[in-house]
Amino acid sequence: MTDTTTALHEDGSLERLTIDTIRTLSMDAVQKANSGHPGTPMALAPVGYTLWSQFLRYDPSKPDWPNRDRFVLSVGHASMLLYSLIHLAGIEEIDADGNKTGRPALSLDDLKGFRQLASRTPGHPEYRHTTGVETTTGPLGAGCSNSVGMAIAERWLAARYNQGGFTLFDHDVYTLCGDGDMMEGVAAEAASLAGHLKLSNLCWIYDSNHISIEGGTDLAFDEDVGKRFEAYGWNVIHIDDANDTKAFAAAIETFKSTNDKPTFIVVHSVIGWGSPKAGSEKAHGEPLGEDNIRATKKAYGWPEDKSFYIPDGVAEHFHDAIADRGTKLREEWDANFAKYREAQPDLAAELDLMLKDSLPEGWDADVPEFPADEKGLATRDSGGKVLNALAAKVPWLIGGSADLAPSTKTDIKGKASFEASNYGGQNFHFGVREHGMGGVVNGMALSHLRSYGSTFLVFADYMRAPIRLSAIMELAAVWVFTHDSIGVGEDGPTHQPIEHLATLRAIPGLDTIRPGDANEVGYAWRAALEDASRPTALIFSRQAMPTLDRSKYASAEGVMKGGYVLADCDGTPDVILIATGSELHLVVEAHEKLTADGVKSRVVSLPSWYRYELQSDDYKESVLPKGVTARLAVEQAGEIGWHRFVGLEGRTITMSTFGASAPISKLQDKYGFTVDNVVKVAREMLETK
Amino acid sequence: MTDTTTALHEDGSLERLTIDTIRTLSMDAVQKANSGHPGTPMALAPVGYTLWSQFLRYDPSKPDWPNRDRFVLSVGHASMLLYSLIHLAGIEEIDADGNKTGRPALSLDDLKGFRQLASRTPGHPEYRHTTGVETTTGPLGAGCSNSVGMAIAERWLAARYNQGGFTLFDHDVYTLCGDGDMMEGVAAEAASLAGHLKLSNLCWIYDSNHISIEGGTDLAFDEDVGKRFEAYGWNVIHIDDANDTKAFAAAIETFKSTNDKPTFIVVHSVIGWGSPKAGSEKAHGEPLGEDNIRATKKAYGWPEDKSFYIPDGVAEHFHDAIADRGTKLREEWDANFAKYREAQPDLAAELDLMLKDSLPEGWDADVPEFPADEKGLATRDSGGKVLNALAAKVPWLIGGSADLAPSTKTDIKGKASFEASNYGGQNFHFGVREHGMGGVVNGMALSHLRSYGSTFLVFADYMRAPIRLSAIMELAAVWVFTHDSIGVGEDGPTHQPIEHLATLRAIPGLDTIRPGDANEVGYAWRAALEDASRPTALIFSRQAMPTLDRSKYASAEGVMKGGYVLADCDGTPDVILIATGSELHLVVEAHEKLTADGVKSRVVSLPSWYRYELQSDDYKESVLPKGVTARLAVEQAGEIGWHRFVGLEGRTITMSTFGASAPISKLQDKYGFTVDNVVKVAREMLETK
Repeated sequence: MTDTTTALHEDGSLERLTIDTIRTLSMDAVQKANSGHPGTPMALAPVGYTLWSQFLRYDPSKPDWPNRDRFVLSVGHASMLLYSLIHLAGIEEIDADGNKTGRPALSLDDLKGFRQLASRTPGHPEYRHTTGVETTTGPLGAGCSNSVGMAIAERWLAARYNQGGFTLFDHDVYTLCGDGDMMEGVAAEAASLAGHLKLSNLCWIYDSNHISIEGGTDLAFDEDVGKRFEAYGWNVIHIDDANDTKAFAAAIETFKSTNDKPTFIVVHSVIGWGSPKAGSEKAHGEPLGEDNIRATKKAYGWPEDKSFYIPDGVAEHFHDAIADRGTKLREEWDANFAKYREAQPDLAAELDLMLKDSLPEGWDADVPEFPADEKGLATRDSGGKVLNALAAKVPWLIGGSADLAPSTKTDIKGKASFEASNYGGQNFHFGVREHGMGGVVNGMALSHLRSYGSTFLVFADYMRAPIRLSAIMELAAVWVFTHDSIGVGEDGPTHQPIEHLATLRAIPGLDTIRPGDANEVGYAWRAALEDASRPTALIFSRQAMPTLDRSKYASAEGVMKGGYVLADCDGTPDVILIATGSELHLVVEAHEKLTADGVKSRVVSLPSWYRYELQSDDYKESVLPKGVTARLAVEQAGEIGWHRFVGLEGRTITMSTFGASAPISKLQDKYGFTVDNVVKVAREMLETK
Repeated sequence: MTDTTTALHEDGSLERLTIDTIRTLSMDAVQKANSGHPGTPMALAPVGYTLWSQFLRYDPSKPDWPNRDRFVLSVGHASMLLYSLIHLAGIEEIDADGNKTGRPALSLDDLKGFRQLASRTPGHPEYRHTTGVETTTGPLGAGCSNSVGMAIAERWLAARYNQGGFTLFDHDVYTLCGDGDMMEGVAAEAASLAGHLKLSNLCWIYDSNHISIEGGTDLAFDEDVGKRFEAYGWNVIHIDDANDTKAFAAAIETFKSTNDKPTFIVVHSVIGWGSPKAGSEKAHGEPLGEDNIRATKKAYGWPEDKSFYIPDGVAEHFHDAIADRGTKLREEWDANFAKYREAQPDLAAELDLMLKDSLPEGWDADVPEFPADEKGLATRDSGGKVLNALAAKVPWLIGGSADLAPSTKTDIKGKASFEASNYGGQNFHFGVREHGMGGVVNGMALSHLRSYGSTFLVFADYMRAPIRLSAIMELAAVWVFTHDSIGVGEDGPTHQPIEHLATLRAIPGLDTIRPGDANEVGYAWRAALEDASRPTALIFSRQAMPTLDRSKYASAEGVMKGGYVLADCDGTPDVILIATGSELHLVVEAHEKLTADGVKSRVVSLPSWYRYELQSDDYKESVLPKGVTARLAVEQAGEIGWHRFVGLEGRTITMSTFGASAPISKLQDKYGFTVDNVVKVAREMLETK
């Protein structure tokens, strides 16, 4: 406890009562759950109080107002800070469709149910689960990177929709982050990008408490963080004491008047402020204990015996401070938008669609139908063509690459780059920052943009955490991964994905689609867009593959079911050949050979395991009948997972080692990805039966 | 091409000839392969030349000399720079045991085989594959982080073995990095740690060429990198022109005389220097083309018609410059070490063991045997005990955590922390920098330390890339991941791993072991250490599990085979129950119940799929007989991969969604991880048969 904070205690104002209410609610909830993180909410209560009551433009009765300021708790473990703020602000709960449920986002009982099964107050804040939570946080650095995406989204929305003298979008994004965030590379990547893009609507508030889980940050972290942010091009402000709400308010004023760069406020705080454990790692991740709680309440001048105590007037004071500003602003915005509807009917209609996560009529009408072509093209190339056809109809389908757009083919042709000098651009240059890109794309998706990020499949490893979070949050983000196998060729094993398909398929709720020709690509992109309730990973090849003759084989629309019979025999097949992506044409050609030789075979294209598993048992039996156990799966990737489809009696032609540096045809020979080998293995299976 | 570089061309010295030889070899090799990256080798040839010829303490005839300076090419795509240097330096090839093969590490023919199947010159440099390559690079930022680990290793080796007036270790680590490295968060994390640790033996040379794949770096990257490194606590030097070898040499002299911080040299260069494509992204990742090569050779004053041309005297000049210094130093070191052997026999013997990746006699003698105990303990706790028993015998078993050691239990008790003030410490504080930790641990392993890094399993996502590289490089790194399931409890879905076990099992060559009680932990750690030819991921629980009564069940030594019959019935079982980790005791208890009810069941513990697959078919048949198809796998993780063991007719009790925030017992009920549910599902399988 520092001397500079005593001023607060001489003040019996509602400010002080509200701040201490946030602190004691947090302490009490953690204690009751016997689990959680009390120290940071106690330290940052003055910051949260001041920001929300004096600055945040937020209407508690309309938590999905599109132009609300965003508050991101990147220190997700300090969830009780956010839950206390949501409760005291009186935010009203809305359901998935934006309709009010008639109850508060968080009641006092919800706070008492902290960290319990099915409560609204899980250990870390969860988007969609609790009204008022803008993004799911906990994995450190994630919230920071999301907030850059939100700030980008605001700039883009403003550039596109603030037309004809109307200002629809001018909100700010505030992020509360800690030492852990500052040590994580993903936050560094996002901060560098934010500085580059001069995102003056972005304010990070860094809780510098010099404590990490292992002890003082001097164990591992003594860099000059402020100077680093200056190097990124940020405006840096230092606050000596988190309890100095006046100094903090002045810093926010400086942020609001800064128009050419993001702002970074370093707030020096004492973890577990006011408690016997103050300033120690012991205040971080465990309950304070009953005795310490009593001592702390005594230090606050709080009734020692009361738990979850909210003094009279505190909730009203806090709610009114926010609502008096926020509700008024939102009502003005509604009136303004009504006029905008008349003046800019097309843009207003577009915005309506976007905000309800819908798509324009005929959004997929121009997706090309690719003619049969023996030579064909790479799915990254057909992917680029399909993306361009879709982006022409869906202008808010925007994204880019981690410095690989010429290779991933994800540029929207003829459109400008998103830059500090042109926030209306549609092509994003994320830099060689895959992890940061992932967090930014999620942040954009949280503002209803249909955002995508692309890189080579092998580098999905750098951005696993945001892909996972996109699935937890059920965001409509699209992850475009190209160069999807040993087909990468000469770049060798460091650049050839082996295990990556399996690792994406393993993420619950992520639809991973590896289309097998250009027309399957058309449906893969449709699948990614038509349903905004989940993220999709699109897996594309570097190398060309034939465009199959769909007059001879089944329609590529089968992609929508995840797996389908592409080519068949009369009656029950002797053997089923299953493949995805660039191996699909191999099994088709093998099927033709086997058919010519009188062997009854079926080809199953299985681009999305996720979608296939959602089908009925009858449909699945029609594709992979239980009676046919001679099944061969062919995929230029690791084997893991394939036995779900081939069973113990089936075989696979897959990769069991890392690849090698060589021209692609040499690698395909070496590892057995040839028509002859597919035929050979299929015949072996039939012979041993 | 800048004017400041013309001085070089007026100089017909061997220096200039050698530099241009490096350039032209690189151009020619990329052209011949019709694939690769010519621009960076052309730009950095003067830097590579100067560093190797004037400074690098390296004996080309003894490339595994333990005290050699390390040269890390973090810009792995510029592999032809390294291959040219290795060839011209005349480094002699050694095999895996350190014996000379009698041929050069890289012949001219090897350079001509660039990027071809089975050549010594793959697209990106590969450790173990090519003598002289100190680490596998390509994925950006990896080499940077490895180099921090190497510098740490040198400081630790010096602290431990430079005793009695002897100096065995005083080498430096040089890293060549580029704009891509500087944008990657992993390099930022590693740089922050290096600054914190004041690694004055570390020098990063940053090739600032303002070009990235999508175009100029001003598209996405205009921060002040030098200032950022100052903020990390580095010594920062700027060189205006990569061709100014004198200025560069002076910078290295400054590095060598700096004793309190790492050095960062910003070298401004022109990509594809001297070619018509100079200064353009077109010089980055594709061959220059025959016409451009002729024009470039003309600009260099080079014979335009000659390919792979090495002027007389160049190779001798370069080799001699290195060998005159390096061979002498190495011979002195050998003589010094001979004396050290007499003066410090114990330390010398220890060092001998370490350098051949061996372990001391009786290294596992003190691994505790845990008595049967119904209450038991968490595997993170038994893991900590076993680690401590091993570290007492193997002092170079060192590592730490990404700020979670109190939770991962990986501290070596009674030992000091590795800090700038004590480089002999054995407990490492990597900070909240999982990805950086991964690269650092790999760098330590590359210097023969038995290094480990730990965090929560869910955060393995942040460090996938270095785990993968440890497998590609066949390093003996140990990755300790605790909090391995929904057993995490209240922290909720962001902290509960679901897909992570599968994603680790999917990495070729990584042994992922999830032991099912304290005694299995003992063997899991043994497995990780006994064989230095692969990395291991140890998967430990947060929550307690019983220590099984091994007098009643099979020995935990079965872990060494990956899977084994733990408990059995007489004759052929009706049903086989398979489990790992914290679910093992569930199936044991279910087996007891089924046995009591007259159902014949077998329990298979399957902690390592990797090891199990290495067993003979006979052994596998003895564990999982083909005839028994009623198989039930139980694991608190995603299902992917389990069908390899249970087949199409088997069942699993696994996780198909993300978890939830609640006390652990509530979660286990909710998701069916109870003895009753195991019994129920087993019975269902038997009834439907």
